[in-house]
Amino acid sequence: MEKKIRVGLFGFGKTGRLVVNEFLKDDDFEVMWVFRKTHKDTEKYASRLLGYEYDQGVIHTVQSLYKDFYIDNPVDIIVDFAHSSAVNYYDEAANSGIKIISAISRYEDSDYQKLISLKEKTAVIYSPNITLGINFLLVASQILQKIAPHSDIEIIEEHFRAKPEISGTALKISELLGLNKEKHVHSIRVGGIVGNHEIIFGLPNQTIRLKHESISRSAFGQGAIFCAKWLINQGKGIYSMENIISQMFANNIPVY
Amino acid sequence: MEKKIRVGLFGFGKTGRLVVNEFLKDDDFEVMWVFRKTHKDTEKYASRLLGYEYDQGVIHTVQSLYKDFYIDNPVDIIVDFAHSSAVNYYDEAANSGIKIISAISRYEDSDYQKLISLKEKTAVIYSPNITLGINFLLVASQILQKIAPHSDIEIIEEHFRAKPEISGTALKISELLGLNKEKHVHSIRVGGIVGNHEIIFGLPNQTIRLKHESISRSAFGQGAIFCAKWLINQGKGIYSMENIISQMFANNIPVY
Amino acid sequence: MEKKIRVGLFGFGKTGRLVVNEFLKDDDFEVMWVFRKTHKDTEKYASRLLGYEYDQGVIHTVQSLYKDFYIDNPVDIIVDFAHSSAVNYYDEAANSGIKIISAISRYEDSDYQKLISLKEKTAVIYSPNITLGINFLLVASQILQKIAPHSDIEIIEEHFRAKPEISGTALKISELLGLNKEKHVHSIRVGGIVGNHEIIFGLPNQTIRLKHESISRSAFGQGAIFCAKWLINQGKGIYSMENIISQMFANNIPVY
Amino acid sequence: MEKKIRVGLFGFGKTGRLVVNEFLKDDDFEVMWVFRKTHKDTEKYASRLLGYEYDQGVIHTVQSLYKDFYIDNPVDIIVDFAHSSAVNYYDEAANSGIKIISAISRYEDSDYQKLISLKEKTAVIYSPNITLGINFLLVASQILQKIAPHSDIEIIEEHFRAKPEISGTALKISELLGLNKEKHVHSIRVGGIVGNHEIIFGLPNQTIRLKHESISRSAFGQGAIFCAKWLINQGKGIYSMENIISQMFANNIPVY
Repeated sequence: MEKKIRVGLFGFGKTGRLVVNEFLKDDDFEVMWVFRKTHKDTEKYASRLLGYEYDQGVIHTVQSLYKDFYIDNPVDIIVDFAHSSAVNYYDEAANSGIKIISAISRYEDSDYQKLISLKEKTAVIYSPNITLGINFLLVASQILQKIAPHSDIEIIEEHFRAKPEISGTALKISELLGLNKEKHVHSIRVGGIVGNHEIIFGLPNQTIRLKHESISRSAFGQGAIFCAKWLINQGKGIYSMENIISQMFANNIPVY
Repeated sequence: MEKKIRVGLFGFGKTGRLVVNEFLKDDDFEVMWVFRKTHKDTEKYASRLLGYEYDQGVIHTVQSLYKDFYIDNPVDIIVDFAHSSAVNYYDEAANSGIKIISAISRYEDSDYQKLISLKEKTAVIYSPNITLGINFLLVASQILQKIAPHSDIEIIEEHFRAKPEISGTALKISELLGLNKEKHVHSIRVGGIVGNHEIIFGLPNQTIRLKHESISRSAFGQGAIFCAKWLINQGKGIYSMENIISQMFANNIPVY
Repeated sequence: MEKKIRVGLFGFGKTGRLVVNEFLKDDDFEVMWVFRKTHKDTEKYASRLLGYEYDQGVIHTVQSLYKDFYIDNPVDIIVDFAHSSAVNYYDEAANSGIKIISAISRYEDSDYQKLISLKEKTAVIYSPNITLGINFLLVASQILQKIAPHSDIEIIEEHFRAKPEISGTALKISELLGLNKEKHVHSIRVGGIVGNHEIIFGLPNQTIRLKHESISRSAFGQGAIFCAKWLINQGKGIYSMENIISQMFANNIPVY
Repeated sequence: MEKKIRVGLFGFGKTGRLVVNEFLKDDDFEVMWVFRKTHKDTEKYASRLLGYEYDQGVIHTVQSLYKDFYIDNPVDIIVDFAHSSAVNYYDEAANSGIKIISAISRYEDSDYQKLISLKEKTAVIYSPNITLGINFLLVASQILQKIAPHSDIEIIEEHFRAKPEISGTALKISELLGLNKEKHVHSIRVGGIVGNHEIIFGLPNQTIRLKHESISRSAFGQGAIFCAKWLINQGKGIYSMENIISQMFANNIPVY
């Protein structure tokens, strides 16, 4: 029997709960603890709060995090869906070799520098959009742009009415493809759409569309699991999910 | 000034004319002659018949093809959009080192064997669906299947009402992905749709769609041009457009 | 201040809870009680179980339903998302003039007859797919078929992998359009798609697509609310959501 | 045997030729003559120029149009796909009761006033987007907006790279729906897309998409035929294709 990967999580908000839930459902992992900002439900089990009949993932408030916490409560990997400043809580973790997966959307500059610096001590993945599908699209669209350099490329992103600003993922895609975001990213805000991204490649006689549709934010949990299984075997350094996916592209080129 | 690539074409039907037209419009090529089945318009110029004010591409009937034709009328590449049996006309061409691009949809077995055997003498590409977009989809979907092996995959192909049978391209995709075509290919036949192919990858929390839409059969001409520019630098052997595209994938993996 | 519409609900499963939640969120309604099959959580408040800080919708088990219940606990409308046999519980409700909305997917024949017979006593809506969007598609596609009688029509329905059989909604659409369901309905089963329906109208030079995408089953709750606001003003009889929507079409034909 | 409808056409450019071709293919019509701006091919038959083996539709240049032309060469309906100023050529036609279908995209103001004024003398249809599908979308989307007034509405229009400005059809849709075109119309310009229009209605739990895809400009010819068959039975007045389609909506409301 293989040993389970022990994870500790930061974040137990709307997305955080979905992520914890995905880890709980996966037999390859054991959820040791979950840090949240507030004092709500501390010392209860995340598993219980999510409707399971067993104990996993004790809830702590970050305010209770003490110097030797990681030594007393060891894990293999930290998964962070909390907020920019959470990075300041895992210095000691990095010191003891715990690997880190961060899926924070937007980092404050100083926090970001902090995160990067951890690569000297442990293996770190930083990926603001940690879904398999989006990262597949990133890599595939960059390759298609090289294969068909004369194609016109436009990006459509659709999200729920209340989402402010252009999506970070669409920005990332436009940057990687060298497109002016003001001109080539079209943001649709209607109703309750969870999140769609479409990259359109137009050629004179044909159109190619690469499209990703989010059904639920649980996809982030699946993405974190995907990253964790990969990261567990890596040495010190900083990685992104695009790294993993582009490596998988390279390893899986079909032969005819 | 670079030397133009001289091409000879087989086929001047509905698709053939569009293909000839694409080669005429491209300055890197010179259309030397066009063979067709009937006697119609022989000795006229394809360029004139297509509305240009200059002479290129004398029309010949295949019945007039004689042993030394290729020596008297040399080309670098033959492009064939005619029919299965046309393969029997280019023995002598292969002998004199002319390269061959065949985009015939369905070969009779004996003709197919004949085509394959030419690889001993010259460089041959055989690609029944010779568009950039479809071949990109072929390679990308095989890679995605490896990256996300648990995804459910379905194929939808949409074509004009009169198209009989399942599309050859959809069959090819289903074969490469190991899908039962009866169960996983869905054929929509309505109105005048030129040709759409969509490969749907379903995961529990996200859906990825790779879609190709044909606007005009001129895309085949563009695909043949793409192949010709590649083939001109290859040695003896038999290739397919998937080979070229998968090689381009390998050469263009992005680095982050 | 307008008087709230008092509703009682049958069903507190996965969909039922979402429906109760929509009624709780809408200020025009007051949820009086909720019947469920099991004894779980009886005498608790549905509102509390759904995370609200106030009391609405006492949970009862159907086994406790007694003859004068509806007199002791009056409502204006019953909304039923439970199961075929629940129809047998609302005889007395109909007798006291309570209106009924049933969204049961598939009725047993005898239960269905029972439901129909209630039209002599009160106003009843029966609508197995009680979303605004689907009913709009039903009516719009029937009109388009009349306007463009020569168009080829195909239906694609996409749902999560585990959904057995063809969707009831797609069946309904194919019946109303007179299409052979074996031939013209295409069922895609992949991953976790909540539910998409697309009706494709193909003409020689153009294609028209009417598409509905479900984001969450809460749409059923919204549909029930839409029906309740309409039903409250109707006399005895049996209605469907298509009736309401087609009436709204007739009342809203634009004038140019 | 029914009498054929005699048509005369203005315009023999790229779109005009396709339109003439649709009328030639339809047995209910006889093409009497075609006016064009230049002198090219005058006195030849449009039918011959389009590859038919019979004579229909003599080509004239507009410079040769004389006062009594319409008396000497009578038709039932004029179909105009030429340009704004062509309206000045059909005064005499209107005087002799010839009906008029204009599909000019953008009229100069004075020409437009001229066109409108003809309604006193004959039956006139003016419809800049004369396809069945687009007009169906116009009417259906206005109705849906009334049925679901809280939905967020966005319009995506996709056309070939070279098309300047926002599409006239998208403008029209946004006006009819009361949407700010700067904010709610998204223009995609890529490759060779003939023309797609999508109207997205977003609700909290569902999305409805009405989509029109043009395959070829021949759709305009089909639209003109559709209008001609309707106009032949109308009295004096000015009409639009939306009028016809909204009338057909009213006449075809399904009853359940």
